[in-house]
Amino acid sequence: MSTTAIRIQGLTGIPELEPGMNLADVLFKALEAAGFAAQDSDCPAADPLVLVVAQKVVSKAEGSLVRLDEVRPSPLAIAWTSRYERDPRLVEVVLQQARRIVRMERGIIIAETCHGYVCANAGVDASNAPSGSLVLLPQDPDRSAAQLRSDLGKRLSRQMAVIISDTFGRPWRAGLANVALGISGLSPLIDYRGQVDSCGRPLRTSVLAVADELAGAAELVMGKVNRIPAVVIEGYDFVPSEGSGRNLIRPAERDLFR
Amino acid sequence: MSTTAIRIQGLTGIPELEPGMNLADVLFKALEAAGFAAQDSDCPAADPLVLVVAQKVVSKAEGSLVRLDEVRPSPLAIAWTSRYERDPRLVEVVLQQARRIVRMERGIIIAETCHGYVCANAGVDASNAPSGSLVLLPQDPDRSAAQLRSDLGKRLSRQMAVIISDTFGRPWRAGLANVALGISGLSPLIDYRGQVDSCGRPLRTSVLAVADELAGAAELVMGKVNRIPAVVIEGYDFVPSEGSGRNLIRPAERDLFR
Repeated sequence: MSTTAIRIQGLTGIPELEPGMNLADVLFKALEAAGFAAQDSDCPAADPLVLVVAQKVVSKAEGSLVRLDEVRPSPLAIAWTSRYERDPRLVEVVLQQARRIVRMERGIIIAETCHGYVCANAGVDASNAPSGSLVLLPQDPDRSAAQLRSDLGKRLSRQMAVIISDTFGRPWRAGLANVALGISGLSPLIDYRGQVDSCGRPLRTSVLAVADELAGAAELVMGKVNRIPAVVIEGYDFVPSEGSGRNLIRPAERDLFR
Repeated sequence: MSTTAIRIQGLTGIPELEPGMNLADVLFKALEAAGFAAQDSDCPAADPLVLVVAQKVVSKAEGSLVRLDEVRPSPLAIAWTSRYERDPRLVEVVLQQARRIVRMERGIIIAETCHGYVCANAGVDASNAPSGSLVLLPQDPDRSAAQLRSDLGKRLSRQMAVIISDTFGRPWRAGLANVALGISGLSPLIDYRGQVDSCGRPLRTSVLAVADELAGAAELVMGKVNRIPAVVIEGYDFVPSEGSGRNLIRPAERDLFR
């Protein structure tokens, strides 16, 4: 690893995504406008880049949405929301998106999604959703990332990796931070095991979740009200790999907190 | 917030820190060598910057170290380590640095430190420590950050914030990531509560832990074997504030996982 400087740039001018729109086309135009598209095939290949895309635009483009007026809340959703000011239809969708309820109290649902992510509301989100709808997580964020990488890789003459990011809460620490849901083209974990410090002792901090750090770094530029749903990271010397967001889910048998 | 591009640069050439060395002097030389010091007082004030410094160099400079040959392991430390290949003296120091043991099984100790951080080994670290010693966390990382900010702020003609970072594991997600232990000069949390999305609905993702995202972004440049213990982040439009790493500790009563 020889990274000594990284540049993180937000892509502006991306329109509101709607089901059926080609997200790769939209992103390519934004990359082109920001100067990331090759102008000339005679140019030497530029440095690799990481493209971080917010989950919400991926879900919208893929039509991963539910219309609230088509949801019939179950008795559980109705009973539970009667104690809190929450929409039973939203809670019903959360229950449908979960494969395990981690906590369901104080009006908050922490759930494990069908993908294995542990997050609030199983990733179901009403904010920035089309009117009357909820946005779900992409069905397969790795596949979404791989598709974008394949589509955009053909048009940009640069090695690239793609991360689909979302904003998750975490135990012990206040506030939310962005993490990598779907990954294509980079190794999400850098493994220092077997390497030694300057005194020859094995390193304690052995496996770094760099894809989550890249997603978090991108969030600093995305913000929440900036309308910057995609960010380019240049200069990070990532380890090329097929990659998968699933590698960032701590296996239950190695998680002391399940 | 008008951040649209961020630059993260590692400071190279920083020597091995030893107790009593003036860390601000060392960092100023590295900042100067990297072109961050003002050359001319007639220059217009440059953009604000965030300086992220690895906890370990702060602890070493402050002498936050324990010599292993001065540690007398307790019966608990001896009994527990007899089941795992671990040094009972290290475990004794971990127990002394903890105010609560969260988990102590499979050879792993997750503890809450006297500061309130929840992490492996209560932050006690043998790697990259002087021979025969262990490195503890700084006594008061916020004070360390404030001291560096005060010392360096006088010499650089730039508004700056300082983050003291460390590498922590986290439940549910694989791999470690850097977080902010001590903070001076920026608000660690950006609160979007009360703000609305483009359709007028309140934002779900309401409070972002930007100081942790800055620390994680810096880790991408620090790495673990690069000998880059300090990183400058330019272009991030942070919210100036006294700031405190303690604001990133989720209060027990609002943590569904305690």
